[in-house]
Amino acid sequence: MTAPFQTLAEFRDILARQPHADSEALTAAADRNGQLTKPPGALGRIEDIAIWYASWRGTAAPTIDRTQMVVFAGNHGVTAQGVSAFPSEVTAQMVINFQHGGAAINQLCEANGATLDVHALDLDTPTADFTQEPAMTEQECISALTTGWNAVDAEADLFATGEMGIGNTTSAAAIAAALFGGPAETWTGRGTGVDDAGFANKVRVVNEGLSRHERILNDPLGVLKCLGGREIAAMAGAIAAARAKRIPVVLDGFICTAAASVLERAQEGALDHAISAHLSAEGAHRKMLTTLGKEPLLDLGLRLGEGSGAALAIGLIKSAVACHAGMATFAEAGVATG
Amino acid sequence: MTAPFQTLAEFRDILARQPHADSEALTAAADRNGQLTKPPGALGRIEDIAIWYASWRGTAAPTIDRTQMVVFAGNHGVTAQGVSAFPSEVTAQMVINFQHGGAAINQLCEANGATLDVHALDLDTPTADFTQEPAMTEQECISALTTGWNAVDAEADLFATGEMGIGNTTSAAAIAAALFGGPAETWTGRGTGVDDAGFANKVRVVNEGLSRHERILNDPLGVLKCLGGREIAAMAGAIAAARAKRIPVVLDGFICTAAASVLERAQEGALDHAISAHLSAEGAHRKMLTTLGKEPLLDLGLRLGEGSGAALAIGLIKSAVACHAGMATFAEAGVATG
Repeated sequence: MTAPFQTLAEFRDILARQPHADSEALTAAADRNGQLTKPPGALGRIEDIAIWYASWRGTAAPTIDRTQMVVFAGNHGVTAQGVSAFPSEVTAQMVINFQHGGAAINQLCEANGATLDVHALDLDTPTADFTQEPAMTEQECISALTTGWNAVDAEADLFATGEMGIGNTTSAAAIAAALFGGPAETWTGRGTGVDDAGFANKVRVVNEGLSRHERILNDPLGVLKCLGGREIAAMAGAIAAARAKRIPVVLDGFICTAAASVLERAQEGALDHAISAHLSAEGAHRKMLTTLGKEPLLDLGLRLGEGSGAALAIGLIKSAVACHAGMATFAEAGVATG
Repeated sequence: MTAPFQTLAEFRDILARQPHADSEALTAAADRNGQLTKPPGALGRIEDIAIWYASWRGTAAPTIDRTQMVVFAGNHGVTAQGVSAFPSEVTAQMVINFQHGGAAINQLCEANGATLDVHALDLDTPTADFTQEPAMTEQECISALTTGWNAVDAEADLFATGEMGIGNTTSAAAIAAALFGGPAETWTGRGTGVDDAGFANKVRVVNEGLSRHERILNDPLGVLKCLGGREIAAMAGAIAAARAKRIPVVLDGFICTAAASVLERAQEGALDHAISAHLSAEGAHRKMLTTLGKEPLLDLGLRLGEGSGAALAIGLIKSAVACHAGMATFAEAGVATG
């Protein structure tokens, strides 16, 4: 399969030409919401979610019948700098665990009614150590974006994506620092559980990456290529592909949001079709979401990745859309409006 | 059907003899949790929920197969004081809406895999206006507690309860003020949407209720009888019955939590088998939960009642328990532990 872009410049052009929410559907959905048998606003954000969802599906009372979760996995050369508590082999071991149904994301997708696809991206060929050279060549980055782009099921009506990649909180922190500025410390966290020395080391590595690639820091897609990873680029490609197909997207935690941030920085509004599932325990996630203007649906102290927070939020979004589509109006039910 | 109590004193005795969590199951569940294929603690509160659930079900890796939601409806004589934006007739109209599947709770139960039972309690005979006399006689209160007690399916493995009752935020505010003390203003909210004058009126009504029944304010079950309502007593009875059957309970918002608070004040620890689903937009709910030591799972600005927040949280609890039961251990999956 091919994607409609062969270069990062072409990918950027696609982002600039993406579809927008349907304002007529939004108005119709808001009108319907006001007639449903509940006091005005009594379902809080559940109402907002349903109206937002309707605006992207282009119809006043849509349903969700086909939710797709895609987990992308990649390996990171920057693990040579000792940034993770786990060895790189765990990425491939966890992919097998996903395939055998033994991981958290398998249970969460089943519990929340989502299909799960797993794409392992060249695990035997980690990205380059970004403290030394660009993590990916342009062709490698395009290849990963294309894998993500093509992973989205055109028939899906809700899409979520997650990741697995030992070392990728360091990559995500470097991306965030590059895109949003400010000291590396404010974007770096504990990942799967490094100690104080490990944290200091991650900050050093992020700073070295920022210095090494200083020339491209004002180019979001250049940041993705130089500081990202294959699974991060694939998530960005998938989120963009979902937009092209008008499929609303559920963003997972820190790493997924970093991938999404590349799109928003490359094209303002590129995440209007995306909702933040949860606030990660990875400390900088809040700052990233605030910068993006996204309010997370859940705050449960998750820091697993895999799309786990997104899978939990899928249940809430399905519930919201089910209320909106299935509830009776005051007129239908013969209920007094006060 | 009968309940194992004929008086409020007997009900209080039952609360004192309720079963406790199984500490061996708790230890076994925590041990299993530590072996699952994820970094320690990476699923945050999702892990805590699973271990708590296991401790009440008495087994290391339980499953949830039968979730029951029960909505109780009652009418309140205190509506004569003009405390609600909606007329009392709406209670019965909404019960019909529940029965026809048109309300939010119908959609939310279906989306989250719960059965829904609705019990309308003597809607044609509202409780007395508590500013004038006790809302219920002891026999009426016992009758409502019994309805709640008998509504719980002994085969359920997760239980949630909600309510419908025009005027019942005023009753719940009066109960909270009586149980927890402090000025009526701090426990009174906007309910389904009263204006400033309506709010001031609700505060007046709560204060009049507290003055009228000053003698019983130190008796939690007396508070329920004098300031409560039939649906509130029924929720309290159901929450207590679930405890007797070792069925974990999901607490809905402000009114459900007020009902539950009666139990906790009558017997410390009476809500150890219960989890708070969500933080209601009804302002005093946070204070009530803090007093009870409960941290809500969701904060979505809901203020509908009906069990709507509890139904949303059911999806999270099922997800947590599914992870705990279904995930592979590091040994099973051949994943390195770092």
